[in-house]
Amino acid sequence: MRYELYYWPTIQGRGEFVRLALEEAGADYVDVARRSGKRGVSAMMQLIDGRRIKRPPFAPPFLKAGPLLIAQTANILLYLGGRLGLAPREEAGRLWVHQLQLTIADLVALIHDTHHPITGYLYYEEQRAAAKLATKYFWRYRLPKFLRYFERVLQKSSGPYLLGRRLTYADLSLFQIVEGLRYAFPRRMKRFERKVPRVIALHARVATRPRIAAYLASPRRIAFSQWGIYRYFKALDG
Amino acid sequence: MRYELYYWPTIQGRGEFVRLALEEAGADYVDVARRSGKRGVSAMMQLIDGRRIKRPPFAPPFLKAGPLLIAQTANILLYLGGRLGLAPREEAGRLWVHQLQLTIADLVALIHDTHHPITGYLYYEEQRAAAKLATKYFWRYRLPKFLRYFERVLQKSSGPYLLGRRLTYADLSLFQIVEGLRYAFPRRMKRFERKVPRVIALHARVATRPRIAAYLASPRRIAFSQWGIYRYFKALDG
Repeated sequence: MRYELYYWPTIQGRGEFVRLALEEAGADYVDVARRSGKRGVSAMMQLIDGRRIKRPPFAPPFLKAGPLLIAQTANILLYLGGRLGLAPREEAGRLWVHQLQLTIADLVALIHDTHHPITGYLYYEEQRAAAKLATKYFWRYRLPKFLRYFERVLQKSSGPYLLGRRLTYADLSLFQIVEGLRYAFPRRMKRFERKVPRVIALHARVATRPRIAAYLASPRRIAFSQWGIYRYFKALDG
Repeated sequence: MRYELYYWPTIQGRGEFVRLALEEAGADYVDVARRSGKRGVSAMMQLIDGRRIKRPPFAPPFLKAGPLLIAQTANILLYLGGRLGLAPREEAGRLWVHQLQLTIADLVALIHDTHHPITGYLYYEEQRAAAKLATKYFWRYRLPKFLRYFERVLQKSSGPYLLGRRLTYADLSLFQIVEGLRYAFPRRMKRFERKVPRVIALHARVATRPRIAAYLASPRRIAFSQWGIYRYFKALDG
């Protein structure tokens, strides 16, 4: 089946977690809004607002898979996991990988909120003091708690991946977390990485998987920018 | 099977979405930390930190179901849905209800952030100005977008529930959203409710379901307070 991914064409954002899974699996997919430019974005918006859609998504990303239209990043990965060989098919394993993914989703929202703690409807420059304080607490408490959690999961699984020897979509997402943190907080991250060696080793291992390496080197991989989840502001990179 | 729910014993919080599902289904469950007081909370913390747990949860709530230990609210409901008759068993319906639940989860995080936009590690009083601004934008843009989305889903399903005639756990969660907004923002909510009549009708309908009505009137239902997701601050209820 050819999957159709709908997401903003100029940022990695939440769509990137889905792209990484599709790429690792060598799946047949079209990144609709990227392929078709403005027409693609308007096709995406029509699926949100369209009167003929019975089960409309709230926001991108969403995936068309035959008759299904599936939204919410973690839900898309839940659907794709077993099909792409990126999650166990049995219930206990499937729920566990999904649980890890939902924990990553919580972290993603917190990362975004470091530069926009008050609202996404104001510019960073309009909430700079709040962002500085939010970032301070994020790095002091929240992020260490999350990354140490994943470190502990890797210790229990004996690695190199969260489930042990078998790669899942949650590993790809954790890779993307490390990638993004290095972009947004290069100095802080440099100091912190030694505290979570297993997470960093997982990142390195994912980066060298042949399909991921090819994807990262291709024009399909959108560059980090100041418009996504991860943004670099010198003042926040204490 | 007797389910064991682990959650903070003194707040509704995220655990309440699970409690509502268990109560509506008349499921056999124990609210462990509530039943056993301090011992219950320490049993809960042991499941998070315990060395013997192979797949530790990141945070409460979590559910013990036989050999399974399942965390993340939406993941618990995904597991319980088909078993409790609160979600379709076929894949498309199951994914759709889960998608709605994940959208509700996003809204829950935003509601919490109105009073603690910068960090949960500081008191409200230490981030009052930011909270006021966050709340203003939340009520101007974010909340209307979410509730109008659910209004549209109800219109498409022809109601009274999100899937039509059949109640799911997502309806119970949407009920809880309305309950909480009325507690935290009584004046704002009063003005806003007429804009989403189907959502309000769903709330009223859920409230009168016999098991939910009995639960709400029982001591098992914890009162809203200033420690949960929803908190009342006069200054925020513009």
